[in-house]
Amino acid sequence: MTRYQDIIPTITGANQEALSAARAYCDFLIKPFGSLGRLEDMAVKLAGITGQTHNHLDNCTVLVFAADNGVVAEGVATVDPGFTRLQAINMTRGICGVSVLSAAAGAEVKVIDIGISTPAGWPAVLDYNVARGTANMAQGPAMSREVAERAIQVGFDLACESYAAGADILGTGEMGIGNTSTSAAVVIALTGITPESAVGRGAGLTDEAWEHKVEVIKQALAVNQPDVTDPIAVLAAVGGLDIAGMVGCYLAAAWQRKPIIIDGVISAAAALIAYRLAPATHDFMFPSHRSEEPAHSVIVDELGLQPYLELRMRLGEGSGCPLALQILRGACAMMNGMGTFDDINFDTTVLVDNRDDV
Amino acid sequence: MTRYQDIIPTITGANQEALSAARAYCDFLIKPFGSLGRLEDMAVKLAGITGQTHNHLDNCTVLVFAADNGVVAEGVATVDPGFTRLQAINMTRGICGVSVLSAAAGAEVKVIDIGISTPAGWPAVLDYNVARGTANMAQGPAMSREVAERAIQVGFDLACESYAAGADILGTGEMGIGNTSTSAAVVIALTGITPESAVGRGAGLTDEAWEHKVEVIKQALAVNQPDVTDPIAVLAAVGGLDIAGMVGCYLAAAWQRKPIIIDGVISAAAALIAYRLAPATHDFMFPSHRSEEPAHSVIVDELGLQPYLELRMRLGEGSGCPLALQILRGACAMMNGMGTFDDINFDTTVLVDNRDDV
Repeated sequence: MTRYQDIIPTITGANQEALSAARAYCDFLIKPFGSLGRLEDMAVKLAGITGQTHNHLDNCTVLVFAADNGVVAEGVATVDPGFTRLQAINMTRGICGVSVLSAAAGAEVKVIDIGISTPAGWPAVLDYNVARGTANMAQGPAMSREVAERAIQVGFDLACESYAAGADILGTGEMGIGNTSTSAAVVIALTGITPESAVGRGAGLTDEAWEHKVEVIKQALAVNQPDVTDPIAVLAAVGGLDIAGMVGCYLAAAWQRKPIIIDGVISAAAALIAYRLAPATHDFMFPSHRSEEPAHSVIVDELGLQPYLELRMRLGEGSGCPLALQILRGACAMMNGMGTFDDINFDTTVLVDNRDDV
Repeated sequence: MTRYQDIIPTITGANQEALSAARAYCDFLIKPFGSLGRLEDMAVKLAGITGQTHNHLDNCTVLVFAADNGVVAEGVATVDPGFTRLQAINMTRGICGVSVLSAAAGAEVKVIDIGISTPAGWPAVLDYNVARGTANMAQGPAMSREVAERAIQVGFDLACESYAAGADILGTGEMGIGNTSTSAAVVIALTGITPESAVGRGAGLTDEAWEHKVEVIKQALAVNQPDVTDPIAVLAAVGGLDIAGMVGCYLAAAWQRKPIIIDGVISAAAALIAYRLAPATHDFMFPSHRSEEPAHSVIVDELGLQPYLELRMRLGEGSGCPLALQILRGACAMMNGMGTFDDINFDTTVLVDNRDDV
């Protein structure tokens, strides 16, 4: 088994030659230069990942990490924590958001118990449980560093296995009552934004409930005072096992030189941790939608990733990944299927001055 | 044959009961209320169109109208007008942007010669030619009102035929050198925005070329002085045959109570004309991406449609339609595949206060 810690120093970023070759190829497809906009950028980024101008994203697996969070004892979520287990099971039954959107996109979903409080007792929920939920971060660390590292390793191993089994790309998802609180705490610690700006109101959070959530997060940070220069210390203190699992996925993607898709704010918080551990992981990450959670925009801004979809989604689960997958497949179709100016004997020099008028 | 003029007074908007029923159903799916954001709005809008809560968008046809524009004589496009015919043929060969993106999305493309200067001589380009290109709008009307109306009827008939043949949804596309000039002129006339704000610079338009394009459009409007309260007069004076064909499609969609997707600025200009002719057509239109052309945002703002995709595309051809189609299919999958709170015996009253934390 490869320890994730050992590969971090070996991660390198995009293949610069492949980037240049892909950009040049884009400019030779029969369209005005740059007129497919960010589809071209996606295709070029994919080339930088794989080293190939032509890529395929036929096989996609969305890895969904389910875990409970001790902070729910503070009343930050009125939904019963049992909902984490229930929805993990429902995801495998094909009736949750990520399930139906993935099925529509021809993507596979794997649901992993990485930290549910109660055994799922449902074989389709894969048992990689590291702990029966975290402790209450408002009273002390959510987990030990050792537990956090074990959970990262679980995600790392599962992502490597998925790529080895034929996945061309992975999506990241989660299910865990209370995880908008843990992810907000992680983002506040790592970026220094204020709790008030990091915590979303959602559609139904009352002023009172929102203020309480902000106070709980402040307390968690005050009680733990994690070393903000140590991403794993932050994760252990105020993060969650679901977030840890996804951190491992991003590290695996970069190591395997394969693409991976970020969903909403919780998977983005994991992406931020991976980025702080190994900045070159950035070159392997694709955004999907812009979440309604305000911390999400802070993270994607730091990562320099602009979401493709403006859908006001805030479900999580990995639900944005199958939607972005289809756009990314469009970028592949462009590279693999479009004709070139050579094919049609077209003199491209005439395009230079007025290329937007075709 | 049904004359498009005859059905305009009969067009009615969304089925309000179906909208309410679909919204209520959305709130009973196993997710926090509203957490799938604009996917829920899409599903509700579809219900208002068809009258059904559950819809399918398996079969999509993108109708691409190819036409030449006499205004190219003013040098607004340095690409040879022959490129319109060449690309129309290439689209049917499967090597253009709209072709590969549609194939990737499982959508069909039909390319229609509605006004190419030279016969395509290629059977896959469907011959519905109304005129061998328009006249130069900078010197006089682009076409007569009668020709504009015939071209609208062509689009109307083809759209009705496509729906009758089994299309669940249509996409609108175009190919026509010079049509960013005609569509800008239409939008300026109908909305009163300045030519300077309507005309895009694209990625390669020099200052000089941009200023010339603006001057030509100003001249076209000054020479023709179309009655801006008469959308068909505007279309005939400064529009194009491609735009006219798409106007017919939007009218057909509303009449047939079927959805239709807008692509970039040229298909949006056509949507604006249809909307001015029959405001209820709005209820049947779905946006796709936000074009780089500035006039596009002006139109979708008037139509109250917010594009789903931010991809900086400016290719046209209908290339945004297959991308949006896949997002719309996600909305259908949500309605058709997700479980309800009844299915899982869940008491929804607990969701009210803290619905964003699941």
